[in-house]
Amino acid sequence: MLNQSASLDLMFQALADPTRRVMVERLSRGPAAVSELAKPLAMSLSAVVQHLQVLQASGLVRSEKVGRVRTCRIEPAALRIAEDWIAARRAIWERRLDRLGEFLAAHPDEPNQGSNS
Amino acid sequence: MLNQSASLDLMFQALADPTRRVMVERLSRGPAAVSELAKPLAMSLSAVVQHLQVLQASGLVRSEKVGRVRTCRIEPAALRIAEDWIAARRAIWERRLDRLGEFLAAHPDEPNQGSNS
Repeated sequence: MLNQSASLDLMFQALADPTRRVMVERLSRGPAAVSELAKPLAMSLSAVVQHLQVLQASGLVRSEKVGRVRTCRIEPAALRIAEDWIAARRAIWERRLDRLGEFLAAHPDEPNQGSNS
Repeated sequence: MLNQSASLDLMFQALADPTRRVMVERLSRGPAAVSELAKPLAMSLSAVVQHLQVLQASGLVRSEKVGRVRTCRIEPAALRIAEDWIAARRAIWERRLDRLGEFLAAHPDEPNQGSNS
């Protein structure tokens, strides 16, 4: 199993391509066969399969072959890991701003102390 | 100005590297000089500056030089754009599951209709 940092590398790398984001977007509306994923994309089926492999390696998408049809589905838990990483950093930043605001509210005169002296 | 898709390419690309995530993590705790950002990283200052340039090109980080010191800060609105893109796809998937659950609750006998016949 990949460690968390290596997984995040692969997930963000997978999301850094507009074609792969279109595929994730399509799969968020429900499972789809590879041919269906390829339909709106102006590229060969083998190029679509390569993008699919990047998405699968990242854990964001999984697929299963039944008979001759490979059906792809999104892995929402993996999307959640990428989302949570970003959200946690934003939350740290926002808490810091809140604390700064509280400090300034509690010490209204201090920012100018020592100036003009 | 970059369009939304090109910005997302650059942001996810910027986040797909562990060193750059360490830098974002540090900056989420407050602004920092380039030398301070470099301190925990086992690489040359010029390698750190290159990573910083990738983060700045993506809009996730901005920096300002005052005198001889370049101070970097995070751009929470940009982090938000990347986070929202993922969250929206996850939300579409979850609404779909909710609708499926409601459908099955309203039609308790139908999943087995036609089987064993």
